[in-house]
Amino acid sequence: MQNFEIQTPTKLVFGKNTQHQIGELIKPFAKKVLLHYGGGSVKKIGLYDDTKKSLEAAGISFVELGGVVPNPRLSLVYEGIELCKKEGVDFVLAIGGGSAIDSAKAIAVGVKHEGDVWDIYDDKAQITAALPMAVILTIPAAGSEMSGNSVVTNEKLGRKYGMGSDLIRPVVAIVNPEYFTSLPLAQLGYGVADIMSHIFERYFTQTTKCDITDGMCESILRGVMKNALLCAEDMSDYDAWAEVGLGGIIAHNGWLGIGRAQDWACHGMEHELSAYNDVAHGAGLAVLTPAWMKYVYKENINMFVQFAVNVMGVTQSFREPDEIVLEGISRLEEFYKKIGLVLTLSELNIQEPAFEDMAKKATGAYFGDEHGIGGFKKLMWQDVVNIFKLCK
Amino acid sequence: MQNFEIQTPTKLVFGKNTQHQIGELIKPFAKKVLLHYGGGSVKKIGLYDDTKKSLEAAGISFVELGGVVPNPRLSLVYEGIELCKKEGVDFVLAIGGGSAIDSAKAIAVGVKHEGDVWDIYDDKAQITAALPMAVILTIPAAGSEMSGNSVVTNEKLGRKYGMGSDLIRPVVAIVNPEYFTSLPLAQLGYGVADIMSHIFERYFTQTTKCDITDGMCESILRGVMKNALLCAEDMSDYDAWAEVGLGGIIAHNGWLGIGRAQDWACHGMEHELSAYNDVAHGAGLAVLTPAWMKYVYKENINMFVQFAVNVMGVTQSFREPDEIVLEGISRLEEFYKKIGLVLTLSELNIQEPAFEDMAKKATGAYFGDEHGIGGFKKLMWQDVVNIFKLCK
Repeated sequence: MQNFEIQTPTKLVFGKNTQHQIGELIKPFAKKVLLHYGGGSVKKIGLYDDTKKSLEAAGISFVELGGVVPNPRLSLVYEGIELCKKEGVDFVLAIGGGSAIDSAKAIAVGVKHEGDVWDIYDDKAQITAALPMAVILTIPAAGSEMSGNSVVTNEKLGRKYGMGSDLIRPVVAIVNPEYFTSLPLAQLGYGVADIMSHIFERYFTQTTKCDITDGMCESILRGVMKNALLCAEDMSDYDAWAEVGLGGIIAHNGWLGIGRAQDWACHGMEHELSAYNDVAHGAGLAVLTPAWMKYVYKENINMFVQFAVNVMGVTQSFREPDEIVLEGISRLEEFYKKIGLVLTLSELNIQEPAFEDMAKKATGAYFGDEHGIGGFKKLMWQDVVNIFKLCK
Repeated sequence: MQNFEIQTPTKLVFGKNTQHQIGELIKPFAKKVLLHYGGGSVKKIGLYDDTKKSLEAAGISFVELGGVVPNPRLSLVYEGIELCKKEGVDFVLAIGGGSAIDSAKAIAVGVKHEGDVWDIYDDKAQITAALPMAVILTIPAAGSEMSGNSVVTNEKLGRKYGMGSDLIRPVVAIVNPEYFTSLPLAQLGYGVADIMSHIFERYFTQTTKCDITDGMCESILRGVMKNALLCAEDMSDYDAWAEVGLGGIIAHNGWLGIGRAQDWACHGMEHELSAYNDVAHGAGLAVLTPAWMKYVYKENINMFVQFAVNVMGVTQSFREPDEIVLEGISRLEEFYKKIGLVLTLSELNIQEPAFEDMAKKATGAYFGDEHGIGGFKKLMWQDVVNIFKLCK
């Protein structure tokens, strides 16, 4: 185990009807709120009205900005920053999924940043402060409700970059799995693929002696997969969604990655798919992850045998480790299919001519700074092209 | 899963040489510190000197109060409160194990409480504020380094009571497992029994549909047990101690108990053993836990089959659930013995004449208010006597 630091101060309020508490929960921090959301879904499910009522009851005034789209855009972030400055907003409240939350985080950072907020995502400036923010989650996936991470797409440059800082951990996160029960099947697949990837990025490591975090990763992967299948059978199953939702929170709140080197190559590659063709993040991850596994597993086959046995339940002879690993990956692919995901880039309308550009962007080579990606096995742009080819 | 709320704001800094950071870490909160500890061990291991140096380097002044003993005494808490008030202390820093931390928490509460701090432990007054406090941990066991709990013994009344509030979660917890490598074997056993009990108290529940927290409890139990045996073989094994230490933190920081009813009968019973005969808390728990399991398992045998299979690795036929459960409990007893623990009350010098008084105190009957204890199966005083008899 490596030395580590972790601090997860977000107050998590989880369960049925918890949305009504938002006003009282953020009252200590908020005088004037920016209410930030996507489209009509928060209105359709009643959350928009519940939120307004709760804010009003707590005597908190607010302005609002809707219109967040999946792979949230920098242009709306700029708009939000301007609005907050003009209106004297001191708190940002996101209601929605990971996109609304990530966009809200970018606004919270941008209000307190002197220059262009994109510079922070582009590693050209440091975050020094952010408005406090809170979240009411409607889609389990991104884990952004408790994380110190945000990903934003600069649609002009065609780049999707992430940033991380404890300064953008929400002070309050309300998670009511009742909202999940009205999602379409596709959102289950996208969400679960993202949740599992958040765990995989931490789980697959060359760091040894990590029994506690290994075990937590494995048990949460098993719990999420079991319950995702229950959701796929009956999308109104509250209890199953509650497990998926809780798994999604812990997957990305930091605790599964403590004391171990992490990978993050699949996320790095996927951001290029999303930036290139506006692919749903989870859809891209489901395509890339099995291919990545096949490409890298020989770097530390024991880690992948452990995955196949402890997570995917492969029980055959241990004398053929490659066979065990490939069976584990094959079971993961079958699982993805069962929750409605596709397994090839062509099904995402991404063809080979685009591979080299995307690979070079993911690894930095495109910008003349090839740093590579991935902690488990460092991938240069040719590696990434090879992985894209494995799933074409 | 039940609705729940959780907030764990403690900044955890974990690993080798981390003690030197204490001054810088608490500087934002502390002008004048009470340095609180037990006996000579913190001096022997160099921590006392390292702490003083780090505080001095950060420009933080301090007064000190040593003398905390296992099952920390109310009289020293009173002394600490007086000292803090006299010296204008605004921050409490505990260096040591769970006893030093629990005593420090009581002092932090008492300084801010108008009346007698014991009233808060005795449920006669509410906590409304506490000085901020931090911890450098030297013994993994109590989980007090990140928890909102404190247990103190009123030696005059012969009562050992606990209290819980998010107000007493440390703002900073430094955990350097190097300190654990110089502990005697007995401390391994006491610590591991306490860590496992913190998980058991949350794990054994009648709440259904808790896959994620079930899985986390089970994986951490397995990880702690595996590494405790490695420590028992070689008490200088840093990596194994790091796993035990991390397991101990997560066991009691609250995350394993979210969304589920909890039990806490073994802790309630054990507090009477400790109050009666100054038994080490972990020693008492190791005696009581298997007996409690035998007494209550029929209330929900499937929960105990799951424990036997998923935690203790019992793999025989599922057609004889009682057999599986008893084999699981027997393996737990064997494990306790391997890490140096005893399994009978007589070995702790507690004989039958004391059982009734202790049972009546644990359940409230002694004070004319028999509320019973335990969420898995509610135990009245006769039940507790029966459990004591099972381990006499």
